[in-house]
Amino acid sequence: MISVIVLGTGNVGTHLINAFLKNSAIKLVQVYSRKKSSLKPFEDKVATTNIVNNLKEADIYIISISDDEIAGFSLQLNLKDKLIVHTSGSVTIDALKANGNKGVFYPLQTFSKNNNIDFSTIPICVEAEKNEDLILLEKLASCISDNVFIIDSKQRKHLHIAAVFTNNFVNHLYKIGLDICKENAIPFETLYPLIVETAKKVTSNNPKNIQTGPAHRNDTKTIMAHLELLSGEKKKIYQLLTESIQKTYGEKL
Amino acid sequence: MISVIVLGTGNVGTHLINAFLKNSAIKLVQVYSRKKSSLKPFEDKVATTNIVNNLKEADIYIISISDDEIAGFSLQLNLKDKLIVHTSGSVTIDALKANGNKGVFYPLQTFSKNNNIDFSTIPICVEAEKNEDLILLEKLASCISDNVFIIDSKQRKHLHIAAVFTNNFVNHLYKIGLDICKENAIPFETLYPLIVETAKKVTSNNPKNIQTGPAHRNDTKTIMAHLELLSGEKKKIYQLLTESIQKTYGEKL
Repeated sequence: MISVIVLGTGNVGTHLINAFLKNSAIKLVQVYSRKKSSLKPFEDKVATTNIVNNLKEADIYIISISDDEIAGFSLQLNLKDKLIVHTSGSVTIDALKANGNKGVFYPLQTFSKNNNIDFSTIPICVEAEKNEDLILLEKLASCISDNVFIIDSKQRKHLHIAAVFTNNFVNHLYKIGLDICKENAIPFETLYPLIVETAKKVTSNNPKNIQTGPAHRNDTKTIMAHLELLSGEKKKIYQLLTESIQKTYGEKL
Repeated sequence: MISVIVLGTGNVGTHLINAFLKNSAIKLVQVYSRKKSSLKPFEDKVATTNIVNNLKEADIYIISISDDEIAGFSLQLNLKDKLIVHTSGSVTIDALKANGNKGVFYPLQTFSKNNNIDFSTIPICVEAEKNEDLILLEKLASCISDNVFIIDSKQRKHLHIAAVFTNNFVNHLYKIGLDICKENAIPFETLYPLIVETAKKVTSNNPKNIQTGPAHRNDTKTIMAHLELLSGEKKKIYQLLTESIQKTYGEKL
């Protein structure tokens, strides 16, 4: 059995705590948060503390706090020879300044605190300085997820950028689509099947092979008509993405 | 029983033909294509012709050809008192120049010719000049789809723009994500659950309420780090979408 302590009760921390509590191969020893009030929801399920010096013994200490605070917080930990990991997509392994062994345990998904999440489908990217630690992290990740990847700090930075494009930016385009629908009294539901189908398609096709639309077929008449109906931010985004698609597929036309 | 003739055997035309052939409430009378060779796949299932003057009698004539050719082609049709519709998202009803009654029958989905498609989930947007024609188009659409919307030409133009944002542009962002992964030897599969979950989420949440990421939380340190790793097109797109997200949620910060 792998024993773990989770430090931090934000979105990722909370979901990890719940996943660990449900799993018989993992012993969640303790949960830490600097705010006592944040520990309330866990008090009847697991030992809790808001004092760094009261941390118990465990195989892995998982720091799940804001990116900017990881370095400073890890300095406060005195956990020699213990494995200390963070859960951030955009912070390198070296940001950990504790005197223990270092690693990363990064679940690649957007978490909302109150959503029920099936961890088994969530990719977990692991990294460690020592090989034995990497094996331990892989084992822990495999207990809760079917998708475990070994991704080093450099790769993880790029993966995070790719996730910004395919998740954060995509959601913003959905928001623009919703705005356009609202402004014209069109039910946004009209677009649901298209949105879901487009996402599902790239899990079995290279997105380059399934690109469609006016920019892809260089349909300048439609592009001009669309630009005339747009203004401000939306127009700028339409122009830039259209240009980018035209450049990508230009050689084919 | 509603009798229809499909004119055009492109992606949309082919999928409509197949959906109509399978449906017992619809009689597909004939398929037209100007190219005789394009009619081959349908010859053993339905009457075909490549001569406009040989068109048979039907309740609805569905023109499914390139946007630019709709007006010119419709001029060749002599179908007085018949209902003639096109299937385009970006062409107005007035583009039809035939001497019959006019309408639009627009299935809102990206079609690949060889994919099997379940039409029942595909939204079909209908429009007609006459109320009785609108009722007939709604009836035809309801035979093959559970999602029928009455959308006029002005709305349809905007809906098409919204679809460009939420489908064409989104797919381009997936392509950029794939490129970033490839360049860094990261399996693109790592992003599949995130991509599909992000799409599914907006079918039950307003995308504005579920936006996440460095731009949303105004995390300038991460944004700067990402920009340093990007160049060219990708960098420009990252900058513009980041600015747009920051402006959208700025008031909250």
